[in-house]
Amino acid sequence: MIKRPDGTADLLPDDLAQWNRVERTVREVFGRYGYLEVRPPLFENTNLFYKSTGETTDIVEKEMFTVPPRGETSDSYTFRPELTPGAIRALIEAKSFAQQAFWKVFYWGSAFRYERPQKGRLRQFTQFGVEALGSEEPLIDVETIAVFAEILKLCGVTRYDVRINTIGCAACRGAFREKLKGILGPQIATFCENCRKRLDRNVFRILDCKIDAEKTAALPPITENVCEACKAHFAAVQAGLTNSGVAFSVDPRIVRGLDYYTRTVYEISSPDLGSQSALGGGGRYDGLVESMGGPKVGGVGFAAGVERVLIALDAAKVAASPAALPDFYAIAATPDARAALFSIVQALRAKGLSGDLDFEGRSVKAQFRSANRSGARFAVVVGGEELAKQVVKVKNMADGAEQAVPVEEAAALIARGRTTS
Amino acid sequence: MIKRPDGTADLLPDDLAQWNRVERTVREVFGRYGYLEVRPPLFENTNLFYKSTGETTDIVEKEMFTVPPRGETSDSYTFRPELTPGAIRALIEAKSFAQQAFWKVFYWGSAFRYERPQKGRLRQFTQFGVEALGSEEPLIDVETIAVFAEILKLCGVTRYDVRINTIGCAACRGAFREKLKGILGPQIATFCENCRKRLDRNVFRILDCKIDAEKTAALPPITENVCEACKAHFAAVQAGLTNSGVAFSVDPRIVRGLDYYTRTVYEISSPDLGSQSALGGGGRYDGLVESMGGPKVGGVGFAAGVERVLIALDAAKVAASPAALPDFYAIAATPDARAALFSIVQALRAKGLSGDLDFEGRSVKAQFRSANRSGARFAVVVGGEELAKQVVKVKNMADGAEQAVPVEEAAALIARGRTTS
Repeated sequence: MIKRPDGTADLLPDDLAQWNRVERTVREVFGRYGYLEVRPPLFENTNLFYKSTGETTDIVEKEMFTVPPRGETSDSYTFRPELTPGAIRALIEAKSFAQQAFWKVFYWGSAFRYERPQKGRLRQFTQFGVEALGSEEPLIDVETIAVFAEILKLCGVTRYDVRINTIGCAACRGAFREKLKGILGPQIATFCENCRKRLDRNVFRILDCKIDAEKTAALPPITENVCEACKAHFAAVQAGLTNSGVAFSVDPRIVRGLDYYTRTVYEISSPDLGSQSALGGGGRYDGLVESMGGPKVGGVGFAAGVERVLIALDAAKVAASPAALPDFYAIAATPDARAALFSIVQALRAKGLSGDLDFEGRSVKAQFRSANRSGARFAVVVGGEELAKQVVKVKNMADGAEQAVPVEEAAALIARGRTTS
Repeated sequence: MIKRPDGTADLLPDDLAQWNRVERTVREVFGRYGYLEVRPPLFENTNLFYKSTGETTDIVEKEMFTVPPRGETSDSYTFRPELTPGAIRALIEAKSFAQQAFWKVFYWGSAFRYERPQKGRLRQFTQFGVEALGSEEPLIDVETIAVFAEILKLCGVTRYDVRINTIGCAACRGAFREKLKGILGPQIATFCENCRKRLDRNVFRILDCKIDAEKTAALPPITENVCEACKAHFAAVQAGLTNSGVAFSVDPRIVRGLDYYTRTVYEISSPDLGSQSALGGGGRYDGLVESMGGPKVGGVGFAAGVERVLIALDAAKVAASPAALPDFYAIAATPDARAALFSIVQALRAKGLSGDLDFEGRSVKAQFRSANRSGARFAVVVGGEELAKQVVKVKNMADGAEQAVPVEEAAALIARGRTTS
């Protein structure tokens, strides 16, 4: 048989209980914070990611799910490796900034990266996140971190660390870039292959190299090499987090793998996750909206990985919400009662009750086993006698009490059982 | 700027109110009928669709979003043009049929077809549907039609038609195929190009050609050319629909565009939709599970197009549920109160209340305008005086009543306002 592609997952009914609990929590918290949902398409013109995610990133260089153009008039499409570019493009294209200057939006959806699959790193994965567009205020940076932490807490992730950094603005970063190149250039031959490539293209990424961590530890921290405005902004972010009761540490090694970040960057990770320890991350991207054709506004956001949150919940042994139990299971006492039983089931469902019946032509005994296994509160039994009297037998599965009543009454009886149990 | 790809849509907050109402309704009704959710990945090995959807279908021949293999050890992937193959593969791969012989599952998710975009026909669209696997009983065919109709009714689609047909089983269909070829062969030159291609490859598809509808109207109806077992099955499906109060008509022209159907096929369409009038369709596919490596069991299901349901709702002028209004909007009466105000907002949100504040450094007057526009029930105002007294001013936006209270009390006051309004 043809199998599931590497790096993907099938979510079956038992998996989806926890998934749906997490999604409900995410939506509830975003609603509380005033973030509105946007849902861009799952694929975009490939150039969008070149221009936003960045040509020098691993994602764009190596990991894109690209569908080649069909004929000369067609475009190259890429299934999104992240949701930020599409969300911002959608707001710009809808001329949203003409309606209001500041937007708080959230998303929940799939993303795709053509990577070597491993635990916590899938080719299809799910992200939730926010974009707050139209403000340079440090408090909105704080809010995006706080809402991320609140979601984790309410989902049941107990062990997580917030680490923040500043990588400066377009103006002050250039000077630090040259300073780093000056220090690293003479010794770059001793660094790993990736770092050697990054010296000219994206020297900051050398700071988060795990292989060369010992060598980079001695470098001057970026937090002390940004301009006064960036220092003040970063101090205000830290004060805001402290005032809001969000525990954090400053980690000058956090630089993030995307090209568009400026000033604040952050990661939230969990010791429960193993080597891919980040639950998510984000930061400020003050030039991005303008570079994509929108107004010159500040922006900040994060993206979190749902599959990673679920690994952390699994490690913390957080149970999924129990599935809702059906109201009834309907049983044909004789085979010729089945057609009538089906109509009765339809009548009960039309009243808003949930329940099922056998479609496998099984014996009465086997049907009662199914009723038991389903967890239904009531069995609804119909045979020749009930058909003749135009009633159904309603059996309370908890105490075994039975009564024969017309269908209308059965519906009311079962509905009452639901509210009192 | 780089625009959205042709044939895709951006769903913005105003659009999503109706979308989310429809999704809630779909999930509620499926739950009531005992269908459990499965969520296969958005892409599959390309061969899966060749083997299930079918090599002679328009979908597989022309419309697949395929990502070519990377290197020799890698597979060709295709973003799913429909969800049935992935859902069935997932159940087979999880050895679900060893646990129980009969499964009722549903899905909700995106699908992709590389078509010429037009109204009601997008390159990325959304489907919901069911698969009932493990039974050949006609009543389960009836149930899948009934649950589809119930969803439409509860969503608010008032005008729709259910049309059903039988296309026979593997045994009896061969004879009718030869009969059709015998009749159509001598006159095929007078048919359209598509029909000419279909004569040998998939003669049944000629029956649903719109161009040659007049010529095919005179052909013997398939319903009278299937075997006795298929006739009896079809009669039972019709009786079940009648007993369940589902209005329908028999239409011998319904053949469906997928290769895997057997016996019952159906379409639900709406006169509100224009030329792409199908809200969805489905049917029985008794050989499919076995051909994909699973047990030899019967199956039946349907897929519906969410975007088409939304067009029908729009035509019927069905309103979306109104968005939930925030509980509060917080206002800094002086700029230096902002940091404290932010912490107060965080404290209120932590109590489960929803609300926001200004992040654009706007005047008090402008902040009050935002409070009004947001529809919040209360304004929470903090200035120098409130800071000194460690209180907040809570203003009821409906009647203008104000009181100054500690934050804890403000939370309780606002929460009470929510439950009584």
